[in-house]
Amino acid sequence: MTPKGFTCLGKKIGIKEDAPDFALICSAVPAAAAAVFTRSTFCGAPVTLGRELIKKGKAQAFLITSGVSNVATGKEGLANARLEMETLAKELAIEQDLVLPFATGVIGVQLPMEKILPAIARVKDELGPDQWEQTAEAILTTDTRIKLVRRSVGKAVLVGMAKGAGMVQPDMATMLSFWMTDADLSHEELQSMLKRVVDQSFHRLSIDTDTSTSDAVAVMANGLAGKVDPAAFEETFTEAAVEVTKQIAADAEGATKLIEVAVTGALDAMQAQTMAKSIAGSPLVKTALYGADANWGRVAMALGKTFDERLDPDSLWISFGEHTVYRDGEPTDFSDETVEKYLKNNDEVSLTVDLGLGNSSATVWGCDLTEGYIRINALYRT
Amino acid sequence: MTPKGFTCLGKKIGIKEDAPDFALICSAVPAAAAAVFTRSTFCGAPVTLGRELIKKGKAQAFLITSGVSNVATGKEGLANARLEMETLAKELAIEQDLVLPFATGVIGVQLPMEKILPAIARVKDELGPDQWEQTAEAILTTDTRIKLVRRSVGKAVLVGMAKGAGMVQPDMATMLSFWMTDADLSHEELQSMLKRVVDQSFHRLSIDTDTSTSDAVAVMANGLAGKVDPAAFEETFTEAAVEVTKQIAADAEGATKLIEVAVTGALDAMQAQTMAKSIAGSPLVKTALYGADANWGRVAMALGKTFDERLDPDSLWISFGEHTVYRDGEPTDFSDETVEKYLKNNDEVSLTVDLGLGNSSATVWGCDLTEGYIRINALYRT
Repeated sequence: MTPKGFTCLGKKIGIKEDAPDFALICSAVPAAAAAVFTRSTFCGAPVTLGRELIKKGKAQAFLITSGVSNVATGKEGLANARLEMETLAKELAIEQDLVLPFATGVIGVQLPMEKILPAIARVKDELGPDQWEQTAEAILTTDTRIKLVRRSVGKAVLVGMAKGAGMVQPDMATMLSFWMTDADLSHEELQSMLKRVVDQSFHRLSIDTDTSTSDAVAVMANGLAGKVDPAAFEETFTEAAVEVTKQIAADAEGATKLIEVAVTGALDAMQAQTMAKSIAGSPLVKTALYGADANWGRVAMALGKTFDERLDPDSLWISFGEHTVYRDGEPTDFSDETVEKYLKNNDEVSLTVDLGLGNSSATVWGCDLTEGYIRINALYRT
Repeated sequence: MTPKGFTCLGKKIGIKEDAPDFALICSAVPAAAAAVFTRSTFCGAPVTLGRELIKKGKAQAFLITSGVSNVATGKEGLANARLEMETLAKELAIEQDLVLPFATGVIGVQLPMEKILPAIARVKDELGPDQWEQTAEAILTTDTRIKLVRRSVGKAVLVGMAKGAGMVQPDMATMLSFWMTDADLSHEELQSMLKRVVDQSFHRLSIDTDTSTSDAVAVMANGLAGKVDPAAFEETFTEAAVEVTKQIAADAEGATKLIEVAVTGALDAMQAQTMAKSIAGSPLVKTALYGADANWGRVAMALGKTFDERLDPDSLWISFGEHTVYRDGEPTDFSDETVEKYLKNNDEVSLTVDLGLGNSSATVWGCDLTEGYIRINALYRT
């Protein structure tokens, strides 16, 4: 199952030591396109260019290199990204401004153009219609698994992929994520839909509270499968993006557990999300879950440190999975052993907080914090 | 060197398994007093009581137990704290409302009153004039070292102590910290001075971005040494509080390094502090420093993720110690090896960022993030 008119490739060109590091996704015809980018004020050349390029509402190729992020590289970095666009446009005989460049990896190092330009010169023969796995692999950095989903909506197909394992607390966007469909959707439809989808998925993810300089989510819809019901498409897109979000949390640097935090009974959706993110982002909650410790006191601490949010300890419920451990101002007589078994034996654990204040809710995704995260980030220059 | 009219003690009464866990500090006469407490909305019984008691502007005793925090303990927790006050007031023949109770440790467990009440009954004979070391030891939890300072101002003496090694990002207050002086200062002088001192010291500390439910800083001034110059006293108080703040950062859970982050060239003091805290709180900066990696890209990332703060990468300087690694939009040709040696060979490392935007600055203190932090918090129920 692959969207009509899209070809792609992933290959190893030596930017990284020993893994694929060059990916390309092309549409046979110019496609409606949309993208959202990091809010970081210290963003890379690809983000600066991408923000401009996406204003046209059209794209035909996403070119992604991994290993070097092209962030903090000044004028030379911008010129290098433009040279990539120009070289690829010539090779594929497409318009230069329809090529969106992306990069991920080390900050402050120039792209190795002596490796990238020759690699671009050979892509015409290497592109294939259903090479999504190898493409999804070539965009990874410290990820250990590819993140790839495929869905159908009516006659159309949607394929999505992402990378991201650390420096992940998306705001307005996320790590790198690419979405391709042959549905016929306008740029305007696509851009407003993408914002809503990202709000429901990547914006509800926190790996380590650090926000990348290169975050971008981009989508192309080339229309070759004809019109679809936009509402049905958005529903599928949202569901698929949540699936990728959870894949990212599960494969986070050093993580052993995916953590789903649901806050219910909030005064409004923003309060629910603020509280849920405070829990999912707390190093003490994350280390407790790593140690399979039903330490609801740390959950209470994380709620309390939102300071300006109303909280009534006497109406609060806290549950790990199905096990309610704190209710209406007091710990329940839960069995430590049972809850610890639940936390120990599951790769996905849920933590639910009912604030007892209103009717709004929000779910966010995160992961535990382990020695593995420390080792990866103390020893590996990302 | 000890302030006149103060006695204290620290002892082991079995709340914790094998360390001193009961501390008491008394003034011979009622003292002017001031305190600031955590902004957490999920705070403990001692904080609830302390906020009320301090309104009188007077205190005569601080009673501190460690091992159990008396947080999330409902009406029973409040009643227990009041019973401690009442029992101690009788034993010492002082006014009950002049006893401030404090507690630190596990959340959600009632105080073991069967151990605490008999311990209070013996204090009159155990209090001594210069037992500050044992007192400072008895307030610790996961700390490995006592934090204690002594200073003189004119004829007066100031003694301060603190505990805190995790769940530390003070806001309006910090962990537990106690200050005793025989200077003659009014409650009003003392309360406004304490707020300024805390803003310059404990509020500039981040161990792990988690804010305690029990944070409190309290001071007693019994006046037995007579009047002092308030400005000179405040200067000494601030300097001593910064010293204790740095002691906390250096002894943080699992930490191997004290990190001092100075941001200069900011538009205003608030921007400088926001930027400095973002750097000191970033897990990726903290793990890089643990690994002695001169990874200025992560410092840039931490600046960028403040989103709403103005940043001009082209006017930015980043330095590790004396080594400038990024200047005016580009990395310098610094020697990786030299900077790594600086980071590896020093227990205290400094990181300076000049924003090149204005004339304001701020310094904050933090620590590196190591496997030790994970182990302590995954395995130990705090």
